[in-house]
Amino acid sequence: MKIDRIIERMDKDNLNTLILLKSENIAYLTGFYPSSIAILILKDDPVLFCSKMDMEEAQQKSSISVEEFKSLDELRKIIKATIQGRVGVEYSLTMGTYRKLCGEMQVELTHIIEDFRAIKSTDEIKKIKKSIKIAEDSFKNLDFSGNEDNLAAQLEYNMRSAGSNKPSFETIVASGSRSSLPHASTTLESLESPLMIDWGAMYQNYASDITRTLIRDEEKEREIFSIVLEAQQKAIDAIKPGVKASYIDEVARGVIEDYGYGDNFIHSTGHGVGLEIHEKPSLSFKSDEILEKGMVVTVEPGIYLEGKFGIRVEDMVLVKSQAQVLTHLPREILL
Amino acid sequence: MKIDRIIERMDKDNLNTLILLKSENIAYLTGFYPSSIAILILKDDPVLFCSKMDMEEAQQKSSISVEEFKSLDELRKIIKATIQGRVGVEYSLTMGTYRKLCGEMQVELTHIIEDFRAIKSTDEIKKIKKSIKIAEDSFKNLDFSGNEDNLAAQLEYNMRSAGSNKPSFETIVASGSRSSLPHASTTLESLESPLMIDWGAMYQNYASDITRTLIRDEEKEREIFSIVLEAQQKAIDAIKPGVKASYIDEVARGVIEDYGYGDNFIHSTGHGVGLEIHEKPSLSFKSDEILEKGMVVTVEPGIYLEGKFGIRVEDMVLVKSQAQVLTHLPREILL
Repeated sequence: MKIDRIIERMDKDNLNTLILLKSENIAYLTGFYPSSIAILILKDDPVLFCSKMDMEEAQQKSSISVEEFKSLDELRKIIKATIQGRVGVEYSLTMGTYRKLCGEMQVELTHIIEDFRAIKSTDEIKKIKKSIKIAEDSFKNLDFSGNEDNLAAQLEYNMRSAGSNKPSFETIVASGSRSSLPHASTTLESLESPLMIDWGAMYQNYASDITRTLIRDEEKEREIFSIVLEAQQKAIDAIKPGVKASYIDEVARGVIEDYGYGDNFIHSTGHGVGLEIHEKPSLSFKSDEILEKGMVVTVEPGIYLEGKFGIRVEDMVLVKSQAQVLTHLPREILL
Repeated sequence: MKIDRIIERMDKDNLNTLILLKSENIAYLTGFYPSSIAILILKDDPVLFCSKMDMEEAQQKSSISVEEFKSLDELRKIIKATIQGRVGVEYSLTMGTYRKLCGEMQVELTHIIEDFRAIKSTDEIKKIKKSIKIAEDSFKNLDFSGNEDNLAAQLEYNMRSAGSNKPSFETIVASGSRSSLPHASTTLESLESPLMIDWGAMYQNYASDITRTLIRDEEKEREIFSIVLEAQQKAIDAIKPGVKASYIDEVARGVIEDYGYGDNFIHSTGHGVGLEIHEKPSLSFKSDEILEKGMVVTVEPGIYLEGKFGIRVEDMVLVKSQAQVLTHLPREILL
């Protein structure tokens, strides 16, 4: 049982209780994704506190017993009266909620739940694959005669109709020189080369994340594109259990540096994907994580020539004895 | 100048510096909505620190000078070396970022920026009206022959095509008995009465938020619907500057209680809307806020009969000498 293994790990870390508020952590542990504030007190006898509004659905779906809570104030009294020993909270807990809920109580910040979440179960991998399938199927039969807004609208309509309740992040469609902005919002610009499209679906709370940059048959675009592809392939080839996450970044960055574009690769090489669009591990030079079987990560090097254009290609990979690429769309697509 | 008034208020609150990370607060103060972590140090000579990835766009859009930051660690050193006096941070600052950025530095939690944001400028009201127009126009010519997922897909496609970069929250389409879940995610259920639809658009970072519940000509549905409408109208009529926000909740709740459905109105009457979908003021019995000219709020009473159905009607209102209803869709729509 997942909860038993987590409680074992809490013992090892000398934590008697975890107070959890992050929706994704609550969904991971209970099967219920709260729609408003909810608090999971994790100890030998765990309880999920929900707002009145979420009670009906929580009682249907949560594997952990549910109680209604009326205010943080009331809950602080319960916590103060019942919780003993060392208490762990999430890094994402806000200062405001901490003070209302814990007063001045000493707490430890912990990544325990996020660490567990980095290794996906068979069931989670199934959901991620479905979320990828929805995103990839939605990319077919698009009409490229409109503008950035409209292309994003088509992609998102297709994903929504296929059962995704939301995009896993704001869809990026960046045309021509706008592709040099790695996170550009869409505009009324018509669609020109290079056309960077970064999109994904949430499906049963699991995310997918893909980027394709469509180019025309032009020398400079081809040159940059092939460097990015080479960096991506070498990074994917380097993935296996036991390797440092930072090494994957080093491999991709090394290729791009060798061609003289090191300063133009302005983000990390990838990140874990699951209940959150960005989660552990981080494929970054700053990361101290080690790749393990069952992790799902993106590999997404990019080169951005300010004011001119940018190219990024992103696939999702499952760490097995080596990398298994989960995304299936062709990488080279001409506009 | 907005910044000058804020610095005046900081003086009054005895705060020498604010450290701000909430995207909406940064967008409010600089005009640039960051796509990844950014930190605004607000003092006499404010600086916005951005990731390399956001630099190009930040330099184009930010009214406050921009510098690149490489890590929270580096920034902590800058903060430690340059900041003196009392430091304010947002309630939404996470414990993880606080510890990395501020070490053990004493900080005050403050709502200053959120307080300013509650009163909308003419320009902000214009954006909110546009965001409402996009949401309302998107409601026209929908095809109700499909399922919940598909109706949400149509609405969101229309909003996206009209220039909204995302829904302001996850669109709710809850059919038949599912309408008793106030925050239901969509499913493959076909569309039956009552059909609760709660949707909104983000437009230039400003949100809209509307609910309509379509019913058939049936006695029980009609009865509940007319109680909700009466509660909503009386609440709207009670809105004017100087009135307590909690009083508006009291008025709506009073009507519903009089008809014997008090226990079935399981959320607050409304909330402010702007850069965030939920912001100040809260129209709740817990609120200690006073309505002021320029606030924009939702008024959205509802009655939820567990396992049977629910009805909610939601409009957006601008506080002037009295309430000006900003939403224009008819409230009564037969399915």
